[in-house]
Amino acid sequence: MTTIDRMSAEPYYLQLGRIIEGRIRGGEYQPGERLPSESEFCRTFDLSRSTVRETMRSLQEQKRIRMVPRRGAFVASQADSGWMLQVTRGFLETEMDNSRTVETRVLRSGSESLPTDAADALALPAGTVGFVLERVRSLDGQPAVHSINFMPADVGSALQGTLVLEGKQSLNRTLREAGHKIYGARREVAGVGASAETAKLLGLKSGAPVLLIRSTSWGQDGRSFDFHRSFARSDVVTIAVEAQAVDDE
Amino acid sequence: MTTIDRMSAEPYYLQLGRIIEGRIRGGEYQPGERLPSESEFCRTFDLSRSTVRETMRSLQEQKRIRMVPRRGAFVASQADSGWMLQVTRGFLETEMDNSRTVETRVLRSGSESLPTDAADALALPAGTVGFVLERVRSLDGQPAVHSINFMPADVGSALQGTLVLEGKQSLNRTLREAGHKIYGARREVAGVGASAETAKLLGLKSGAPVLLIRSTSWGQDGRSFDFHRSFARSDVVTIAVEAQAVDDE
Repeated sequence: MTTIDRMSAEPYYLQLGRIIEGRIRGGEYQPGERLPSESEFCRTFDLSRSTVRETMRSLQEQKRIRMVPRRGAFVASQADSGWMLQVTRGFLETEMDNSRTVETRVLRSGSESLPTDAADALALPAGTVGFVLERVRSLDGQPAVHSINFMPADVGSALQGTLVLEGKQSLNRTLREAGHKIYGARREVAGVGASAETAKLLGLKSGAPVLLIRSTSWGQDGRSFDFHRSFARSDVVTIAVEAQAVDDE
Repeated sequence: MTTIDRMSAEPYYLQLGRIIEGRIRGGEYQPGERLPSESEFCRTFDLSRSTVRETMRSLQEQKRIRMVPRRGAFVASQADSGWMLQVTRGFLETEMDNSRTVETRVLRSGSESLPTDAADALALPAGTVGFVLERVRSLDGQPAVHSINFMPADVGSALQGTLVLEGKQSLNRTLREAGHKIYGARREVAGVGASAETAKLLGLKSGAPVLLIRSTSWGQDGRSFDFHRSFARSDVVTIAVEAQAVDDE
């Protein structure tokens, strides 16, 4: 569909929405790119301004575009639509691109003996001493994620003396600069009840449902260098996955 | 690392595990392929049989391989490690490849006026009549997922008279055969408390934490043809995402 079908029962604003969505998905309008102005859409499709506005409102609600005051409508980037689990970017990097204020409070950091799940994920013998980093992240002032990262000792040592331990620098970026670049990761998601501790940190009642993400990241050599458990408040942070067809499907 | 380092403090079984993992990730051992026998690993790496067994046990726990009685160890396919959200395959197709018994009970199917979230996701005016399919899926006899699919009326009509409505055929496959092939999908995950109804269907207490997946699928033309809410018991079904680095990261 590339023009408005005047005989269709489908409201014009939805038809226009589909045309624009098709162009976004087809790559004609790229993520981050500014859309044509409302007046241009009015002229091109011979539609009233209120119809075009209704389309924009609906695309914005679906997070396909975002409106910037005095500048117009922009195609949403993946980052705009929350933390995308199928890419290797971290939570902080995503949300900062998203223009949300991220505050990080470091609860503890240092050498500790690794719990079983972390040791298994990192392919280390249970009880090996590793590096632990526990943090609470807030978005625009609201507690959003409680996370505990576990790393092999040599990986953790790259964090000594950095601003990561003060909550002022991205863990992902710092590890990357130290040569630990994520080549792949596996992330399991689950709905769980918040522990008393997590609940307190996230401003919830103990046992309240939260999203648990258990993530293992490895480098190109296949070595796992980070495992984390993150507990997220689904009402504060959107966590999503984009799926794409592959040939054998 | 391609040989066992006899001077290292790292146990041999973990060193061998890393070598095998590296070969799986590097593509030398392909998903579904049979690994060399235990005896071959013993010979190649000059290791005892108990060490090689320990490696296999540990790789199996990490779901990198699966052991088939009398046939040996096989590299796990993605499907073996749960429902992978970054691909477009459905739950049923995944779990059947996984050799788990899937039973589906259809709770309701037919034409209904679409709720707001479904209408928005399908880009239809609120209150449009669409097709609704509500099901409970069990895995090996355990209730695992409660899901409600919403489709535009014309898409749903392709299901009339099919075994999908009796819970005996894959919805994904049937839609695909009717020309509605998933080109892309967006899936949001959240931890939520089960409603009284969902709890009863899944054998949980009301309010117990479950994983909510809200998924919208579209075809190559950009038209959304299916929206579903699925509530999953994380203790019965593993739901995961594999992330891969892309160039700009």
